[in-house]
Amino acid sequence: MNNIEWQESTLILLDQTKLPTEISYINCTDWRQVAEAIKMLRVRGAPAIGVAAGYGLILAAMESARLNAPFNEQLVTFYDFSERLKETRPTAINLAWAVERIVNLVKAETKTSSDMEHIIKIITAEAESIHKEDVGLNRRMAEAGASLFEGQCNLRILTHCNAGALATGGLGTALGVVRKLYETGQLERVYADETRPLLQGARLTAFELHEDDIPVTLETDNMAAYAMQQGLIDAVIVGADRITTKGDVANKIGTYGLAVLAKFHNIPFYVAAPYSTFDFTLKNGSDIPIEMRDAYEVTSFHGIQTAPEGINVLNPAFDVTPHELVTAIITEEGVLTPDFEESIGKLCHIVQNR
Amino acid sequence: MNNIEWQESTLILLDQTKLPTEISYINCTDWRQVAEAIKMLRVRGAPAIGVAAGYGLILAAMESARLNAPFNEQLVTFYDFSERLKETRPTAINLAWAVERIVNLVKAETKTSSDMEHIIKIITAEAESIHKEDVGLNRRMAEAGASLFEGQCNLRILTHCNAGALATGGLGTALGVVRKLYETGQLERVYADETRPLLQGARLTAFELHEDDIPVTLETDNMAAYAMQQGLIDAVIVGADRITTKGDVANKIGTYGLAVLAKFHNIPFYVAAPYSTFDFTLKNGSDIPIEMRDAYEVTSFHGIQTAPEGINVLNPAFDVTPHELVTAIITEEGVLTPDFEESIGKLCHIVQNR
Repeated sequence: MNNIEWQESTLILLDQTKLPTEISYINCTDWRQVAEAIKMLRVRGAPAIGVAAGYGLILAAMESARLNAPFNEQLVTFYDFSERLKETRPTAINLAWAVERIVNLVKAETKTSSDMEHIIKIITAEAESIHKEDVGLNRRMAEAGASLFEGQCNLRILTHCNAGALATGGLGTALGVVRKLYETGQLERVYADETRPLLQGARLTAFELHEDDIPVTLETDNMAAYAMQQGLIDAVIVGADRITTKGDVANKIGTYGLAVLAKFHNIPFYVAAPYSTFDFTLKNGSDIPIEMRDAYEVTSFHGIQTAPEGINVLNPAFDVTPHELVTAIITEEGVLTPDFEESIGKLCHIVQNR
Repeated sequence: MNNIEWQESTLILLDQTKLPTEISYINCTDWRQVAEAIKMLRVRGAPAIGVAAGYGLILAAMESARLNAPFNEQLVTFYDFSERLKETRPTAINLAWAVERIVNLVKAETKTSSDMEHIIKIITAEAESIHKEDVGLNRRMAEAGASLFEGQCNLRILTHCNAGALATGGLGTALGVVRKLYETGQLERVYADETRPLLQGARLTAFELHEDDIPVTLETDNMAAYAMQQGLIDAVIVGADRITTKGDVANKIGTYGLAVLAKFHNIPFYVAAPYSTFDFTLKNGSDIPIEMRDAYEVTSFHGIQTAPEGINVLNPAFDVTPHELVTAIITEEGVLTPDFEESIGKLCHIVQNR
C-alpha cells in the first residue's frame, strides 16, 4: 500500500481519515483537491504533506498551461496557486519547504525558458526527486536513530501521533527508527498514544505497526504518565512539524506534555525529522505559528456529539517542546545533540554546501 | 436534576453514560441493578458510588427479607449481597466504606434484634444519612477549598474527569470548590480535560458547569501541558477515589500526569475529597488495586471502531499520584498540607473520636 503515488497526471492519495476500517484512495487531478486533502488531513504528516504538495504543483502548472494566456500570465497564475497550496496548513514547515524548492527552481528555469511544457517537466522531475529523497532519508534516519540504542535490547518505545510510513514517503521518521530496531531484534514493543482529537495514533500508528506485525500497545494520551511510572517505557521517539535553529520542536499537540513527563521520569526524549523540517529563519519555538482547528474535532466523534452544545473549546493542533527537554534529534545526516544551536548550525552548513 | 434519589423503595439514578445528549433515569428495584449501574458507570464518582451503594443495600435487605427462611439465613444472604455489591469496582474506597458502615451497623443491631423489617428501617436511615452527610460535607469542602485562594481573582482552574455534583450527592468535591469560587466572583474559567477513554470531562463536567453558567473551556487531555505552558492555568483541582495514610492519591487515569505537569510549571495541585475517601489501612499508593477495564473502551466509540481489530490495549481506569506532587488535600474538616502522614493522622483521630 502506497499512501502517495503519482500516475499518469494523477496524484493518488490514500485517504487517511478513513483508516483503519476503510482503505480508500482519492484521485487528485486538480491542485485544489490536493489542498483539500492536506487541509482535511486525508494526507498528513509533515514529510508526506511536502511530498504531496510537490505533486500538487505539477497539477497547478498543468492548469496554468491550459490557460489561453501568454507565458508570463501562466507563470503568475502558477505562483498564485503555489502560494495558496503553501497556505493550506501553517505549522509544518515541510509544506512551505517543498513548495519553495519547486518555485525557486521554476524561477531559475524561467530565466532561460518560456515553455510551460518544459516547466511542467522540470516540476515533475523535482516532485519525484522530493518523493524519492524522502524514501532514502527515512532509511538514513532509521540507521542514525538505531545507533542511539546500541547494545540495548527489549526496548519499549513510546510514540505519539503518527510519524510513520503514512506520514512520509518512506518508512517513517520515528517509526522508521522503530522498524529498524524491530529488524535488529532490539524492540520489544511500541506504546502508541491514541492522540486526540483525531486519533492518528489509534487509527494510523497502531494500524501500520499491526499490519507489519510489530508488537504495539494502544493507550489513551493520559496513560503515558502511568506507563512511564510503571517502568514500561525506555524511550520516547516522536516526529516533528518544525524545528527552530535553537532546537525547539513543534509537533502534534501532546508532544510537549510527553517531553515534560519523560524528563521527570529520566526517560530519553528523541525527535526524528529530516532536514526539510528545520526552519532556519526561526530561533524561538514561541514564534512558530500554531494552527487552531475547529471545535467539532473535540466535541463530536463521527457525527456523534460528545460534549454539550455550544461549549467553548481549546483545539491547538500542535505544541512546542523547548530544546531543553529534547535529548537528541535524529536526522538523515546523523544524530544532533545539545548544544542544538551549534549542531543544527552544522547541519545547515553541511546541507547547504552540498 | 438529582443524580441519586430514593423514592418509594426505588433507587432512581440518572444514567450518566447517556449524558450530555440524553437525560434518562433508571429505576432500580433490585440491588443487582445498582451493581450493574456502578459497574457500567451509569452512576460514578467515588462519593456518588458510596451513596448509591447505601441505597442498594436497602434493596438487598428487602430481597433477603422476602426469602422464606429463618432470620439468620436472611442475614447471611444480606451479607453475601453486600459483599458482591462492594466488589463491583475495586479502586474507589468510598464504595467499601459505605457498605462496611452499613454492614457494621447491621451487625451491631442484630445483637439485640432479629426482625428483618427493623433492620431494613435501620439501613434506610443510615443510607439516607450517608446521602445527607455528603451534601453537607461537599459544602464544607467547598468553603475549605476556597480559603486556599483568599485574595486571588480571575482564577483559571484546571480539572480532570468529573468531581462534580454528578460524582457526589451534593455540590461536588473539586467542582464544589469551583462553584464556591464562582459564587465569590473569584473564578474566571474552568478548563476541563475531556478525560479519555470515557469522556467524563466532556460529557459530565462541561455539561454540569455549562448548565450552571460557569465559564468552561473543554480540552483534550493532551492539551493540559500546552495550557499550562501558555500561562492559562492558576491551579489544578481534582477529586480522588482513594487516599492512603501517606497522602498518595488514586484518581482517574491521567491525574498523575497532570500532577507531574503542574509540578514542572509551578502550579499548585489540589485534591478535594471527603473523609470517606481515606484508606487508613494502606500507607503506599502502590498498594491500591487499580481497576483494568475492557479494551473496547479505547478501541471504539459508540460502536464505531477507531483502532485496528485485535490490537493490544492498556486501559487502567486510575493512576496513583504520589504525595510529593500534592500541594494540599481539601477535606470537609479543612485543608491538609504536608507532612500528610501527620495531617491525615490528625484527621483520622478527629473523626474517629467524634
